[in-house]
Amino acid sequence: MAVYTEVTDDALRAFLAAYDIGEVVAFRGIAEGVENSNYMLRTTTGDFILTLYEKRVNPDDLPWFLGLMQHLSTQGVNCPLPVVARDGSALRLLADRHAAVTTFLPGVWPRRVQQAHCAPLGQALAQLHAAGASYAPERINALGPAGWRPLLERSLSRADDVTPGLGAELTATLDHLLAAWPRDLPRGQIHADLFPDNVFFLDGQISGLIDFYFAATDILAYDLAICLNAWCFEIDGAFNVTKGRALIAAYQAVRPLTEAEIEALPVLAQGSALRFLLTRLYDWLHVPEGALVTPKDPVEYLRKLRFHSHAKGISAYVG
Amino acid sequence: MAVYTEVTDDALRAFLAAYDIGEVVAFRGIAEGVENSNYMLRTTTGDFILTLYEKRVNPDDLPWFLGLMQHLSTQGVNCPLPVVARDGSALRLLADRHAAVTTFLPGVWPRRVQQAHCAPLGQALAQLHAAGASYAPERINALGPAGWRPLLERSLSRADDVTPGLGAELTATLDHLLAAWPRDLPRGQIHADLFPDNVFFLDGQISGLIDFYFAATDILAYDLAICLNAWCFEIDGAFNVTKGRALIAAYQAVRPLTEAEIEALPVLAQGSALRFLLTRLYDWLHVPEGALVTPKDPVEYLRKLRFHSHAKGISAYVG
Repeated sequence: MAVYTEVTDDALRAFLAAYDIGEVVAFRGIAEGVENSNYMLRTTTGDFILTLYEKRVNPDDLPWFLGLMQHLSTQGVNCPLPVVARDGSALRLLADRHAAVTTFLPGVWPRRVQQAHCAPLGQALAQLHAAGASYAPERINALGPAGWRPLLERSLSRADDVTPGLGAELTATLDHLLAAWPRDLPRGQIHADLFPDNVFFLDGQISGLIDFYFAATDILAYDLAICLNAWCFEIDGAFNVTKGRALIAAYQAVRPLTEAEIEALPVLAQGSALRFLLTRLYDWLHVPEGALVTPKDPVEYLRKLRFHSHAKGISAYVG
Repeated sequence: MAVYTEVTDDALRAFLAAYDIGEVVAFRGIAEGVENSNYMLRTTTGDFILTLYEKRVNPDDLPWFLGLMQHLSTQGVNCPLPVVARDGSALRLLADRHAAVTTFLPGVWPRRVQQAHCAPLGQALAQLHAAGASYAPERINALGPAGWRPLLERSLSRADDVTPGLGAELTATLDHLLAAWPRDLPRGQIHADLFPDNVFFLDGQISGLIDFYFAATDILAYDLAICLNAWCFEIDGAFNVTKGRALIAAYQAVRPLTEAEIEALPVLAQGSALRFLLTRLYDWLHVPEGALVTPKDPVEYLRKLRFHSHAKGISAYVG
């Protein structure tokens, strides 16, 4: 929920003059995304999203993100297509921020996940992975296993404020995961943050995947594990195997998992739960003065982490 | 900046089934307005705004607000037109909130006010006042003079935390204003909150006036005084008489001010500055836990109040 940077009329007009997309007709801040400022931009030629990249995004990564979206879009993935200015650049400056215009995608993200959402999601995720195979540039996943220990260390001294014993539990889990982390699984471009608010549906089909600003080159099945965490738990904390089965089966219909991937799923799901637990824990303990965003409760992901720690194999996810 | 209430897909679909405006195509939270939750809603028939009324709005007032917008729109004012459901109602329930669908207005609100904005604004304000004359129902202005003393009393004990001596200064100003407040000026329907973020421009013309949820039946020239405060001061605190002259002249070209209104302008401008100072002071001193909105600095309006206290007549505003 954010609009951090205001754009003056003059600055917007000057910015758009570099593009061939017509004149401004409407311009409204969108209350979505916590990392960047997003505007719905209507011009005389159509609808777009204008994104201003705020300080949490490393500017050096932006060409990789925009290149990935352009590549995936060309391959038929319903994701935002960066609009190129007349000089050929998709990344420009506006209001002292890096900024990009992308196409507007229709659809509504599901506020309450239904079983019917999970098969289209699994299919779209596998299609994203397939389409990403021909995008050669790589980006290290800063929030992958190598990033977890430094992240934990920044919260460790106060972790027990959230739940007694949390610091010791996370340290032990991290030690275990780093030792058990699979090394030879298929890798590629992953979204790495495919939560419901990043997936638009229209008439029961996926009309858009958005927010590629955590995307990276990493284990493909790890992306599936992130979706298991983000889509298949009920509000009461129970894992819904019907949703898990729908998600995994639809994924496999496009890209069958290897034996090694199937075997690694519980570890990957633990790692994914730990990753979101660690960033939420950090945000929870470090709410900035005057924050515009309420941090998400880290305990939700502690429960998920514990579920995966007890999972004996893929049957925990598909029944 | 807000989206306080989430709407599930099922609830949205059920809600829209009561209307003849087609099926949902897109639905995005808008980061504007601090009082209510607003969504940009695209259907198969067009674009709309869906508003869910949050607790700061009195539900008993909603029919009056919606009736006013409908009336003004019919009279040619570019304001949101409430969309009526098949059963004839414009006000319905969604996600445990009162809710309404209105038409989407194009345009961009000016992040930086230019002189060129002020004449269209003055004209639009006078046209709004003229169009409102045939809307018979009245609404007491809860934030008019009778509301100022109770509002001050809720902040008085801590007012000096903001600026030493503020409590005494505001008490003296209030006493003076209530004694000097004009009694026989022309009254009618006023917007009462026509700040730049409530006025959309397109090609130099006003394309939309929005957010009528402070509108009330009150002194018409008080609305003009609110605009003098909201549009004609520079960032350094100086009043810009070129902007003031453009605003007042364009207003008068549609609805000439009476001698008594012209004479009362400094007092009305003081009252308007005090009204926004008092609500900002209250919000500043009462930031709720986990607030999503940074309160606006009340001192800006203290400076404006002092300027008007020294104004000798309309020449202070038109040079």
